[in-house]
Amino acid sequence: MHSLQELLEPEFLSKKTTIAVVSAEDHHVLEALKLAVSNNIVIPILIGNSIKIRKISEEISFDISDFELIDIQDNAEAASFGVNIVKTSKANVLMKGLISTGTLMKAVLHNHSGLLKHSLLSHVSVNQIPGYSKLLVVSDAAMNIKPTVDDKIEIIRNAVNVCNKIGIVNPKVALLCPIEYVNKKIESTVDASIITEKWKTGEIPGCIIDGPLALDNAINTDAAILKGIQSSVAGDADVLITHDLDSGNILYKSLNFMANGNSAAIIVGASAPIILTSRSDSAINKLYSIALACKMAN
Amino acid sequence: MHSLQELLEPEFLSKKTTIAVVSAEDHHVLEALKLAVSNNIVIPILIGNSIKIRKISEEISFDISDFELIDIQDNAEAASFGVNIVKTSKANVLMKGLISTGTLMKAVLHNHSGLLKHSLLSHVSVNQIPGYSKLLVVSDAAMNIKPTVDDKIEIIRNAVNVCNKIGIVNPKVALLCPIEYVNKKIESTVDASIITEKWKTGEIPGCIIDGPLALDNAINTDAAILKGIQSSVAGDADVLITHDLDSGNILYKSLNFMANGNSAAIIVGASAPIILTSRSDSAINKLYSIALACKMAN
Repeated sequence: MHSLQELLEPEFLSKKTTIAVVSAEDHHVLEALKLAVSNNIVIPILIGNSIKIRKISEEISFDISDFELIDIQDNAEAASFGVNIVKTSKANVLMKGLISTGTLMKAVLHNHSGLLKHSLLSHVSVNQIPGYSKLLVVSDAAMNIKPTVDDKIEIIRNAVNVCNKIGIVNPKVALLCPIEYVNKKIESTVDASIITEKWKTGEIPGCIIDGPLALDNAINTDAAILKGIQSSVAGDADVLITHDLDSGNILYKSLNFMANGNSAAIIVGASAPIILTSRSDSAINKLYSIALACKMAN
Repeated sequence: MHSLQELLEPEFLSKKTTIAVVSAEDHHVLEALKLAVSNNIVIPILIGNSIKIRKISEEISFDISDFELIDIQDNAEAASFGVNIVKTSKANVLMKGLISTGTLMKAVLHNHSGLLKHSLLSHVSVNQIPGYSKLLVVSDAAMNIKPTVDDKIEIIRNAVNVCNKIGIVNPKVALLCPIEYVNKKIESTVDASIITEKWKTGEIPGCIIDGPLALDNAINTDAAILKGIQSSVAGDADVLITHDLDSGNILYKSLNFMANGNSAAIIVGASAPIILTSRSDSAINKLYSIALACKMAN
């Protein structure tokens, strides 16, 4: 896949995906679903305050008469219900509506009734930026606050899974740091060198990893050459792994709000993909996120 | 000041600034100085390997016959000499050439012979980005690894000083975090709320501070409104303060390498501004950095 637009092409998704929308009584979410339905991507199951869902749908001319509408007004109950229909495969994607992320994730992370599968949940975004020649996957911008080395390896695995689903084989993964060499005072550089060593022993297959790399050496060939960096990742990264939530969130938002980028973003690592769009995401980015989740579930 | 181009306008700098260049035997640094000399900004004092300096200058057609050339081949000695002529006001700006940042800073930070003035040294960049309506100051992208709350207040003071020198009065300072509310598990949000409270008591004058703010709410009015954030900083920040070096470096490099931005960057907090250009900086950004340092020294 070379552009996010391809996510919307009919041949890309083999069939419509059923998507459980928790607390669907939200203007932005229903607008995004309307767009996804008109693109023949999804069949939503709308869970939440049915009166409000009907009212908003009418306001935005979204005909929901063909879709299941489950009236559950309590957010926690709506979340449990949504998680359960995904767990029993009645739906294949979970989407957050007008509910706090915490309440939704509590249901997802529940020991018995949740969607865990012994892997870490992480936020993965696929970004298309005018200033870069190919799609760029960034993780983690929204889930893990201060991942350990082992957490970072899971974050990489999740990102590589997303890459493979969208046709990026053996992705080049850059471990982002402020500098391109190890400085023991800078934790990210120490972590990066440990992970790169583990990759060299074959512990993290399916990708090429290098780090520590600074952002300029990771995505700009000239910058990598000027620094004398010899690496097949440097200057040509497919995946950027950030040290923590502070740096990941800034990178993701900078690409979207400063570099004029578009993005599809989902939570992966559970037994089904989860969509947590933010109100400030553009309509097209919300649609891309839904399409990416459906591709992951296919 | 509304654009970096203004840094080069004759009326902006009242006179040429003398600049001590440590280990000047570097192609990129001499190219930048040639440009600065042709723009009537600086009078360089070139310290380092005089044979190499002459050779490179000839290669790039940079006539250095009018400038002082001090032959000191040892880097540490060249650094001490450079710092000393700044300390004694023979030069007003210090610039790094082909010498490690560590060796140069050791001379700058020396207790007796250095350039300390009881304030924290920090990296301040002034960025011009096509996607933002005004100049955007970012700190700290290159000096402080994990600043404490007190360090961050010094970083803000240094950034405000730079703002004032370039005509940004009472700048709006956003304390960047991954989210716009306090979460005790996310250290940056706790620090931001402490600093905002201190600002409210009048402890940090000359600016308007708000945080925690996420990058989207700090620089995008629509995103701030959608999140219901009421603040004169949100959506209209002049200064972005990042939590640590990882996040600051990524933001700065993202603006330069992804968002098609230009920037002027210097180290402030010593008794004179210090220029540490990187090889991967573009020629025009190196010139802007020199011009900004000269403005700070004026």
